[in-house]
Amino acid sequence: MRLLEERIRKDGEAVNETVLKVGSFINHQVDSAFMDALGRDFAQHFAGKGITKVFTIESSGIAPALMAAKHLNVPMVILKKQTSKILEGNVYQTRVMSFTKGTSYELTLFADYIGKDDRVLLIDDFLANGEAAMGAARLISQAGASLEGIGILIEKSFQKGRSRLEEAGYHVYSQARVARLAEGVIEFLPEDGTDTGE
Amino acid sequence: MRLLEERIRKDGEAVNETVLKVGSFINHQVDSAFMDALGRDFAQHFAGKGITKVFTIESSGIAPALMAAKHLNVPMVILKKQTSKILEGNVYQTRVMSFTKGTSYELTLFADYIGKDDRVLLIDDFLANGEAAMGAARLISQAGASLEGIGILIEKSFQKGRSRLEEAGYHVYSQARVARLAEGVIEFLPEDGTDTGE
Repeated sequence: MRLLEERIRKDGEAVNETVLKVGSFINHQVDSAFMDALGRDFAQHFAGKGITKVFTIESSGIAPALMAAKHLNVPMVILKKQTSKILEGNVYQTRVMSFTKGTSYELTLFADYIGKDDRVLLIDDFLANGEAAMGAARLISQAGASLEGIGILIEKSFQKGRSRLEEAGYHVYSQARVARLAEGVIEFLPEDGTDTGE
Repeated sequence: MRLLEERIRKDGEAVNETVLKVGSFINHQVDSAFMDALGRDFAQHFAGKGITKVFTIESSGIAPALMAAKHLNVPMVILKKQTSKILEGNVYQTRVMSFTKGTSYELTLFADYIGKDDRVLLIDDFLANGEAAMGAARLISQAGASLEGIGILIEKSFQKGRSRLEEAGYHVYSQARVARLAEGVIEFLPEDGTDTGE
């Protein structure tokens, strides 16, 4: 999606080989009209998949997920990052490593908000090594529901996340695919290549 | 706003005298179309105030704040809860007690996302004792900007938050005002009374 790539070129800041700051319009200050347009694009891309719920992982995926859910006219469900296992209540949990922070957490989904017939679209802001998305996929699988697609704002294509998700059989659509980062340098993949043939 | 009160009667769950669960449509699973309508109501209420930015506190205020920002056609800024003071960078910070959790955090606003000319609308999901909103008001004041209004989904009118904010001179608009909670009991104020005469 050229719209997001153009905005990243204009307002993003490449700090080093791995860190891309988009706090001025994506995940700290949010351009609400732009986010609405990105949500509409996700909804258009996944139209016809029979999506019943949009899932995201707190907290920076909430804005794009909410806009995608609105355009698909379905609910949005927030997966929580808990520091420990919840022993009471009907929940699905799985441990996820956060390589960025060197910590781990229990990704948590309340059973009330998913059913076997649900067809889920997962939305997140960044895709790097795919740990969080793989965790979400495990929870959805545990619940007996199906993960129909994964929508990402910014994919770090030089990391292994996309290939891990595709090898696991998931359809990934990223609105911006970053091929390389360096201080002051942001390069995208030559064409969007986000349609994996489906 | 009767729309939200009706929905709380239908789908909210009063656990005891202080806890009202709205996880099925507000802050865990989010009814995206309903949240869009609540955002539109905030935008209509604060139209004419010259709002330039909508602020919220991570993470359960993000959904209503984003929808309000979209309808006002302004950016949304997320105030972060940090565990410690940030010593580098240009930030405003203030300590906020969380009575619910018995902890405190540094409410943090990056200076890049506020200017002296900004006219801010603060949106949050719950108003109880007003600690978080008072903290946000201090940050906005530190930055030399003006807090033009505070929009709340659910006010616990039996707690002191609203009176604290009004005594400090702020205009508070709550879409649902809960007079009393008990296990299985939810009572609202007799009329919405949310217009404080402005």
